Amino acid sequence: MRMDLNSDLGEAYGPWAMGDDAAMLDLVSSANIACGGHASDPETMFATLRAAAARGVTIGAHPGYADREGFGRRIIPMTPALIGRMIAAQVGSLQGVAALAGAELRYVKPHGALANLAAADRPVAEAIVAAVAALPGQLAVLAISGTELELAARAAGLAVFSEIFADRGYLPNGRLAPRDLPGAVLHDPETVARRLLAFLDSGLMPATDGSAIPLAADSICIHGDNPAAVAMAGLLRQRLTAAGVTIAPFLAAR
Amino acid sequence: MRMDLNSDLGEAYGPWAMGDDAAMLDLVSSANIACGGHASDPETMFATLRAAAARGVTIGAHPGYADREGFGRRIIPMTPALIGRMIAAQVGSLQGVAALAGAELRYVKPHGALANLAAADRPVAEAIVAAVAALPGQLAVLAISGTELELAARAAGLAVFSEIFADRGYLPNGRLAPRDLPGAVLHDPETVARRLLAFLDSGLMPATDGSAIPLAADSICIHGDNPAAVAMAGLLRQRLTAAGVTIAPFLAAR
Amino acid sequence: MRMDLNSDLGEAYGPWAMGDDAAMLDLVSSANIACGGHASDPETMFATLRAAAARGVTIGAHPGYADREGFGRRIIPMTPALIGRMIAAQVGSLQGVAALAGAELRYVKPHGALANLAAADRPVAEAIVAAVAALPGQLAVLAISGTELELAARAAGLAVFSEIFADRGYLPNGRLAPRDLPGAVLHDPETVARRLLAFLDSGLMPATDGSAIPLAADSICIHGDNPAAVAMAGLLRQRLTAAGVTIAPFLAAR
Amino acid sequence: MRMDLNSDLGEAYGPWAMGDDAAMLDLVSSANIACGGHASDPETMFATLRAAAARGVTIGAHPGYADREGFGRRIIPMTPALIGRMIAAQVGSLQGVAALAGAELRYVKPHGALANLAAADRPVAEAIVAAVAALPGQLAVLAISGTELELAARAAGLAVFSEIFADRGYLPNGRLAPRDLPGAVLHDPETVARRLLAFLDSGLMPATDGSAIPLAADSICIHGDNPAAVAMAGLLRQRLTAAGVTIAPFLAAR
Repeated sequence: MRMDLNSDLGEAYGPWAMGDDAAMLDLVSSANIACGGHASDPETMFATLRAAAARGVTIGAHPGYADREGFGRRIIPMTPALIGRMIAAQVGSLQGVAALAGAELRYVKPHGALANLAAADRPVAEAIVAAVAALPGQLAVLAISGTELELAARAAGLAVFSEIFADRGYLPNGRLAPRDLPGAVLHDPETVARRLLAFLDSGLMPATDGSAIPLAADSICIHGDNPAAVAMAGLLRQRLTAAGVTIAPFLAAR
Repeated sequence: MRMDLNSDLGEAYGPWAMGDDAAMLDLVSSANIACGGHASDPETMFATLRAAAARGVTIGAHPGYADREGFGRRIIPMTPALIGRMIAAQVGSLQGVAALAGAELRYVKPHGALANLAAADRPVAEAIVAAVAALPGQLAVLAISGTELELAARAAGLAVFSEIFADRGYLPNGRLAPRDLPGAVLHDPETVARRLLAFLDSGLMPATDGSAIPLAADSICIHGDNPAAVAMAGLLRQRLTAAGVTIAPFLAAR
Repeated sequence: MRMDLNSDLGEAYGPWAMGDDAAMLDLVSSANIACGGHASDPETMFATLRAAAARGVTIGAHPGYADREGFGRRIIPMTPALIGRMIAAQVGSLQGVAALAGAELRYVKPHGALANLAAADRPVAEAIVAAVAALPGQLAVLAISGTELELAARAAGLAVFSEIFADRGYLPNGRLAPRDLPGAVLHDPETVARRLLAFLDSGLMPATDGSAIPLAADSICIHGDNPAAVAMAGLLRQRLTAAGVTIAPFLAAR
Repeated sequence: MRMDLNSDLGEAYGPWAMGDDAAMLDLVSSANIACGGHASDPETMFATLRAAAARGVTIGAHPGYADREGFGRRIIPMTPALIGRMIAAQVGSLQGVAALAGAELRYVKPHGALANLAAADRPVAEAIVAAVAALPGQLAVLAISGTELELAARAAGLAVFSEIFADRGYLPNGRLAPRDLPGAVLHDPETVARRLLAFLDSGLMPATDGSAIPLAADSICIHGDNPAAVAMAGLLRQRLTAAGVTIAPFLAAR
């Protein structure tokens, strides 16, 4: 069995660091790299692209609202058309820096509040998909399983891959439990590892009401924004490997 | 005889307008479009690219220091390597929006303080050239005649085109006279038109000391940031056309 | 009879102009000056403060969401506490520049989407009022008549003044008609002037359903962001003066 | 004997942390708090002001170039007049947030490249001093000993205090050794502590050429941007206290 691990990387900004990208690049097979919207700058993009390419990690763009102070976690009111232009500008920017770094993007995964909106709002999802489809490089979409973004990308004929979250609780309808609900975020690495291995075995994810829901998964999203998160990510990779799962990207690095 | 007219366009930002882009797009054959650094935003880029493409005007990227408050007219201390990443990010961004707008970039022309630095500083010129060379689309460079940028682009095997300024005074060494010198900026449209036609006839530009200097010219840069500038631009086009000069881009729009 | 005319001024940013501040400063008795959030920068603040002080125009702060690209017209999700900190930072910034310019602020009037939210949302109104109350200078609040902001400021014991809009339609409940409704924005200067004089005579404003509603008014807000707006403002001032109304601020300039 | 310890604090931005402010606030007697120029935002200002006030630490403003990406370490070309407006806007902003936080500023210390320029350039120093003098609160200036900023502040009749750097090498002329010189930055805490105690005893600081130079010192600047720096700061405080030095601010907190 093969499975991809992806993580949000390159989220430093100027003098400010965010997480331990070097450690995470040794764990993941796919890197979602910020594009100068919610985080990053040209030098951070370049250094992150270089580091990912040097390790053979597959590279995706991770665009978000152009709101550094809110880290892309606030919905900035914009028409779908404007969102499309923003996606094209951000992903294009990362593509430009990737060309200079000798790297190549394979997919796009929206960030934060934009990802949440694209999961639920079809016109926004379609605007994002139209921008991705217009860009060069035959970019795929990495979407949360079962969302409008996934459906819109599939309808447009793009390659689509689904991700699940190892350390997040799920509602019975397959959506992520909001962060203020109990059980929305799991902190114990062993629990998370056990749950993940059970899911890979059965294809069923336990929901917050005790039921079990079927989820498609081409990739598992892991986090590295603090030492505990990096440690959990390391344990997950270890347990997956020990269980015979090969960690490999859903699309080869180019 | 054929000659290109180019102008800096798409320099609005959010709610703020700059110049009369619609009027200028009817006069020029090449549009240097801002990339979100010294000016512009994704929607302004999109609208400007669409308007240029609709008129068949050839499109170039016009990157500058990421300094909106200073409009790219202040030198921000950066290493050549950082400048290269910035150029790749900005031109890539415009390429991304162009892909969405159904337009295509043909060349790059640096803006303001960055253009002045690239004219005189070889390592900066080389960093810009390396970024342009790495980007897709076989982009050319539009440079001020006789500058380090022109030489570096030529040395790297890029297509290079030279521009002159119709309304600026020249020093005996072929450089633009600094704006605080008398005669550095010409305001009378008839004088500017007469001077330009004489140059096109002879290949010699009058310098501030009364001498005449040979300059290569594939394009004439005209300005449109105020009504008087637009009027002068209109007169220049009229006089060129009346003198039998065909206004045509140095590279075809694609 | 005395009446104040106020207008939003100092909304340039770096190289970009907005409206004709010099013309408007000759028409108004109170100037709402942007604070570097939705518009402006330290030099624009300084120049606008100086120009207002030189004409004896009373000065107010005009803070808005820190969203230049959206010109403060988009609601950026923020807690009331965060909004309070933002107001304190922006008004404090204008106070600092005013101290350098030899001018003094007398009141605060929120801008755009923040003003709309403060009109309807009591906790946001209270956070703004708490920030204004904490700042030095015994600042008053200029609020749209009948809003939560007016009520919260009154409850906190601040001096409060009410403004009406000469060129905007009103709903029967006294709120401004949303801009996408027919009759929400009035364009004919003579109609606007006639309507305003009738209101000053009767205290009753015609509503969009044909009814007439009583409104308190210490000030009339006029606009100057385009030549037609400046012309309308000039006509209004002329008609008010001709009808015997003295144009004078609700608080003296200091 | 009494001595002040100061440190640059409140240099987070949005989601990005910088250093360990809580640890440093337990060590210093004066806190230089960023003003939203090179770092910070209204919420970071508020939280830092509150934390400093809760510990009775004296508060100063730490304005810098409005260049977050360069962290205020790049000289942005500006006239002295513009620098004055920027200082007034930034310090005023922090004063506004301080009013909301129930805290009060006592002094101003420029940051980074602006501090370096103000040390050497008299017109820039005078513009900063004029802005500080115009602001309310009778603010003092904290300057590097022997600089143009110190002289300009003294000439303008402001209260001026001098700082030295415990972990930096000095040139024979009393200036800080540039960071690229050997011996410019000292990394061994015991060496730094020994050197500092010797200076407090003799008033003479060893210079890079082996000579000893007299320096005035009202305050010692310590750093906390990484765990090693915090540890060094803790050791310095310990050694000073053990040597009978009372750590106390040069101006009382208000």
